[in-house]
Parts: sequence; structure tokens; C-alpha cells
Amino acid sequence: MAQQVNPPRGMRDVLPAEKAKRERALAVIRDVYRRHGFDEVEAPALEEIGRLHSGIGGDNEKLSYSVLKRGLTNGDLQTAASVDDPMLLADLGLRYDLTVPLARFYATNQASLPAVFRALHTGPVWRAERPQKGRYRQFTQCDIDILGEAGPVAELELLAATSDVIDALGLADTTIRINDRRILNRLLETWGVPAERTEAAMITIDKLDKIGVDGVVAELAERGVTTEGLGATFGSLATAGWNLLDGEPPAWLDVVAYGDLLALRAALPAARIEFDPMLVRGMGYYTGTIFEITHPGSGGSIGGGGRYDGMLGRFLGRDVPAVGFSLGFERVIDLLPEAPADRDAVALLVDGDVPAEVQLAAKRAELAAGRRARLERARKNRRGQLEALAGEGFGAVRVLTADGLSEPRPLG
Amino acid sequence: MAQQVNPPRGMRDVLPAEKAKRERALAVIRDVYRRHGFDEVEAPALEEIGRLHSGIGGDNEKLSYSVLKRGLTNGDLQTAASVDDPMLLADLGLRYDLTVPLARFYATNQASLPAVFRALHTGPVWRAERPQKGRYRQFTQCDIDILGEAGPVAELELLAATSDVIDALGLADTTIRINDRRILNRLLETWGVPAERTEAAMITIDKLDKIGVDGVVAELAERGVTTEGLGATFGSLATAGWNLLDGEPPAWLDVVAYGDLLALRAALPAARIEFDPMLVRGMGYYTGTIFEITHPGSGGSIGGGGRYDGMLGRFLGRDVPAVGFSLGFERVIDLLPEAPADRDAVALLVDGDVPAEVQLAAKRAELAAGRRARLERARKNRRGQLEALAGEGFGAVRVLTADGLSEPRPLG
Repeated sequence: MAQQVNPPRGMRDVLPAEKAKRERALAVIRDVYRRHGFDEVEAPALEEIGRLHSGIGGDNEKLSYSVLKRGLTNGDLQTAASVDDPMLLADLGLRYDLTVPLARFYATNQASLPAVFRALHTGPVWRAERPQKGRYRQFTQCDIDILGEAGPVAELELLAATSDVIDALGLADTTIRINDRRILNRLLETWGVPAERTEAAMITIDKLDKIGVDGVVAELAERGVTTEGLGATFGSLATAGWNLLDGEPPAWLDVVAYGDLLALRAALPAARIEFDPMLVRGMGYYTGTIFEITHPGSGGSIGGGGRYDGMLGRFLGRDVPAVGFSLGFERVIDLLPEAPADRDAVALLVDGDVPAEVQLAAKRAELAAGRRARLERARKNRRGQLEALAGEGFGAVRVLTADGLSEPRPLG
Repeated sequence: MAQQVNPPRGMRDVLPAEKAKRERALAVIRDVYRRHGFDEVEAPALEEIGRLHSGIGGDNEKLSYSVLKRGLTNGDLQTAASVDDPMLLADLGLRYDLTVPLARFYATNQASLPAVFRALHTGPVWRAERPQKGRYRQFTQCDIDILGEAGPVAELELLAATSDVIDALGLADTTIRINDRRILNRLLETWGVPAERTEAAMITIDKLDKIGVDGVVAELAERGVTTEGLGATFGSLATAGWNLLDGEPPAWLDVVAYGDLLALRAALPAARIEFDPMLVRGMGYYTGTIFEITHPGSGGSIGGGGRYDGMLGRFLGRDVPAVGFSLGFERVIDLLPEAPADRDAVALLVDGDVPAEVQLAAKRAELAAGRRARLERARKNRRGQLEALAGEGFGAVRVLTADGLSEPRPLG
């Protein structure tokens, strides 16, 4: 009797139909970003553990998997207490995002890269999340970043490329929500939030979608942020739009940053772009524009990013401007229809004793005619077998016996 | 001053030109295998640690990276001695090959898979190898397996598909070396090797390419295998070919297995196939045919595989016939030329103050005409800039100033 065999808890197997869908989407994404001038790169899945725990990754750092030094196993851990430096035990970690690895990659390889480097980076990341529906401990991220360009043309290129990706994937009705950390900072200043509590206040505001205005006001009060009139401000901010410079601009508005957003919007005429002064984007490293793409079919955003001019300096010793966008690959996949069936595929049902080389020759003839082909032993339940083949997308079936090959019969 | 920043020891970054080459090769491999009826699947990079150390992986098990249970960090390890069950500390491991994960995948998902399942599985694997030239601790494997087919048609399909992949990649002059574990077993039997020393003897014979006939004879003697006349036998075996059934077959030959190999060879007329009775292929799980593809440009083989009918039973509780082939992706990549330049790509050099939206519009016009485009700030050293762009494969350059856009000028 076989025991139950499963992938590790919180991880999953990708079956053929789902894998075909994922690879098809990745091919579209790669093609569009490549034509927009992005160069694909790859960093190892492991990074030094100290680098993964340097504060850049925010809460995700706590979810990172540590990897034992080469050769060490559980048995060695029993003597761990006698080791003075625990870093001797776990010296690597699995990446929890692609941002820290890309920053490290750029610091390592900048001499071989263009002055303004447009990177496409895609691959698996790991987070030891609590198990919950639709969240996996291994999932795919898909990031583009422009490193070395301080001007708004970088934001424009990111958003234009991503809009084209979204279109090429057939996802209509997306909205780009946009804000600037400078606007948020100024807003918090006018509310009297002291600089040292700015980050905590942003973490609270970031929960607006989940806990609502009342929840945010209450949590801000707990954190010592004046509540008087705060609810009303939230209400009016929710309707803040693109006309704030038509009359006297509100006192809370960073006019320069807002002007930059207006310019971005004007240059991306085809996209639906909303100004959202309450948009935070979780990570602490953002310094300027931040943006998020939403789709009505997805509960949350299907991607987001922003400018993070300060981060590369931590690795390089000199500041390099940077802006990035991360496509929520797993959410995008959930929104896409099944991959269309390859109606040209032919199933060759082998009935009775047919020499192996005759089977192969029949398959080769289909391939030579440009068709995908699969050999399959004919089963007693022929109807069930044909239904299964139609379900897998085969468009025709032929039967191969010792007497020869039947004409193709359409399926499904 | 920036400190030196590197990827983890023994791992590497993949730069744009190399990444383009790798992705192009993978697309070819995927396309050919898919048309041959293989379905791509994906398993997580992590598996339960006990499964990775169950003996299937041979020596590779010693090279596997162990991963700490979710949430645990170095700090927790200091109290490790007080933990009774060390499995509570490291419960997962990074896969060191794709065979163990595929066997586990099949056991988990067999109800959703075709009766004969042709799997394509590709992705990174990790081994904590001693650092040495050309060997990395993270590398890509690319496996195909046919599960559920006991007949030689499975071997034929594997080898035919792989031959087509090799052709599509443009690798001429490959040779398929083929043997059968039953032939090896019988050979060892006639040498008087007791059954319990068969595996050890095979490990020695597997070193023939490295330590030569004398080395093998000496090591076999150490292991208690009769040496009388062994050197001479090796000599005659080296010239053993496809004519062993023309006269009286040699006493050491398993005639049935050899007949199967002759049939395989006859059905693959286009390929160069050599019979090598000394071919071992390292892993202990092979039960029948084994094969290896060599290329004159590569020191070792560029891929290999064989039949492993016993292994799936360990996961399933019932035996399922299986045969697999692993393409040595990293070696194949080393043999391929640089990806050809995309001569349609255009670099747009921005000279002076040009509004961001004008830059984007110029880029968009190139994209609309089907060309890849990159915006780049014009540098003082124009000649160096143009040379770098030509080196990256750009076919033309245009200069964008406040006055407008120049006509394209060919590059390189």
C-alpha cells in the first residue's frame, strides 16, 4: 500500500495545462519587455544570509529560509551549541524577492553593464508564509528595473512597457494608480506626524483597503497621530483627482511631485491613470513615484513599484537612481484563460502488436508534417480515452495496427 | 569606498548576452520536445529532507543543501543541542537533481496524468560541490522521462526526440553510446564478481575514461575482482561493435539485451550509435538500457540516461516502468555560439534637453515599426558609445535632440 506523497507543505506541483499557460505568458512578457529595451539577467536563488537580513526586505526578511553551510546536516546541528559563531552553520538564504538580488547583481557587474541599465529579472522566490488559500511558499516574480536614470523618462518607460505587456496578455480594464512618496510625506507633515513616526504611519495608511477609514484613524491615534478632522481629510482625499492645480492647491499637496505625476499622465494617454494620495506601497525603500496596477478580476493589485534612489548606495558606496516595477505573475496567471488547445496535435492509438520502429515511424511522419504527436496504447474504454485526449487538446486521432494506419478522425 | 560584492561562492550571475543565449536554447528544446509529445511540468525546488536522503541520489545526496524549518535562523541554532529531534531544525532540502522530484511528482499526481506520461522538466538544481573551474553550485538541468511504458518504443521516442533537439540546436557530430545494465551484469558474472560486489565494480569501471585500463584493473583487484586476463578482455571489449551475433556470440554477452540494442539502432538510422559494453552511467537505479551522448567539443558527455524500472515503486508501492534522459544543459550552452545579434534593434541617443514624453514617443514609433529600441543619453565619447552598442548587437543608431530625430545610421 502506497503512503500519501505530497510536495512540501505550502508548495505545489504545476501540472501540464497550468505549466503551458505559465510558459506561454512568460514568453509574451519576455518578448514585449525585450522589445522595449530591457535585458534579461539571472542571479542565483541563494544570497549571503547577512545580505538578506540587512533591512531592505522589510517584513519579508522574517519569512526567509536559511540554508545550512555546505555539507552540514541535521546530525551536525546537535553539536551546534558548541559552535561559537552561529554564522558558521547557516551562511546562505533563499531569496524572498528579486530586489535585493538585483541590487547585489548590479553592484557586482556594473562595469559590464550599460550606463543606464534596463533589467528584466524573473524567477522563483521563497517565503515561509503561514499556509493560506492561494498563497504559496514558492512563487514566481517578474521584475523590471531601470538603474542609472534619475529623470521621469524612466517611469514613463516602465509604465509604457508594462501597459504593452498587459495588453499583449489580453488583460483589459486595468487601472494604474499613482502617487509620490514626497506627497505622502508632506501630507503626514501637515497632520503633524513627527518625522520619526512617518514610516509607522505609512504602514497604517497602507491598510486602508483592509481596515477602512475608521480603522486607520483609530490605529493612527494609537500611534500618537492627531485624529482631529483626520476622518474628514481622508474623505476628501479619496476624491482628490487630477484637477488640484486648477485653483489654489491644497496646503497638504507637494506641488512639484504632483506636477511630475501630471506630466507622466499626459505622456501615457492610452492608459487609465488615477491619482491616489493614499497609495503607500509597503516597502520602506521608496523615495519618489510609486504605482500599482489593479484589475477588476483580482482582489488586490496585479503589480506595482516605484522609485528607490537610495538603495543601490548601500551596496555600491555611491548613489545610483533606480525605479522598478514588479508584475504580480501569480495573480496575472490566475486572470488568464486556459492556454488554447493545439488543434493540430494528433494522438496515435496503437492497437495490438505493432513493432516499436513502426510506431516511431508513424510519429515521425506526423512531426514532419508539422504536427505535435503522441503515441498511446489503445484502451478498452475507447470513448473515455478519446474524451481524455480531447480534453488535453488533441485535435485528431489515428489508429495504428499491424495492418496500417487509419485516416485522421477529428476529436472534440 | 564600496566593498567587493560577489554572488555566493561557487554561484554565478548570468549577464544579458549569456542569458539571451540560454533562453534561446531553452525555447528550442521546449519546442522540439513538446512536438514530440512531452508535457512540461514543474515541481518545487525544495523537497522533504528525508526524501532527498533516501539513497536514490547516490553520491549527490552528500552534496545537498539542507534548509532550516520556517522561521528558524542562526540564533535559534545556538539552542539546538537541547532539541531532541534534529529533524525539527532542518526539514527541507534543495533538490540536487530532477529525478527524485519527478518520481515524487508522479506519485502525487498520477491520477491526473496520462497512463503513459511523457514529462519534460527543466529548472535549477543545487549541489554543494568543491569549487572548481566550470562547475557551479547552482546549475540548470533539463530532463525528459517516459513513465508507464515498458517496451523499447519508450527508448526510441527519447532518443529520437533528443536527436531532433541536438539537430535543432545546430550541434553536429554527436554520437550516441549505448549499453544495457543486463550486459554489464552478465559481463561481471563471467569475471566471477559476486553479486554483492557488482555495484562497487561498476563504480570502478565507470572511471575507465579517467584512470585507464590499468587503473581499473588495479582498483578491481583491490576490490577482490580476479585480474587474470582482465586487461586483455578490456582491450577486446573496446573494439566490440554491432557484429557480435554474426558468428558464435561471446560467452560474456547477454544476447537478449544485445538484440534489443540492435533493434534500437536499426530504428534510429540517421544517428551515429556506438555499442559500448563498458558504459556504466553512475546512478545505482538503472535496470536496463543506458545511453550517453557525446560531442567532440565537450570533454565529457552532453547528456545521458537510461531505464530505471524499479525506482517509482519506492514512492508508489507498485512498480511503474520508466526511462529518462537528462540533457547536460550547461555543457550544451558552452558548445553553442553567441546568440546572433538582433540587427533590427535601434539605439536612440538623446542629446541635450529633450522632454521625457518626446523621448518615449520616439521609442514607441520604433516599437510600432517592429524594432527593438533603447533610449540612451548621448555621451561625450561618441565613438566608444557606438562601439559598445554595436557590440551589444544594435544595428542602427538615431540621434534625438530638441530639434528632432536624425535618420537611422547603420552600426557595426
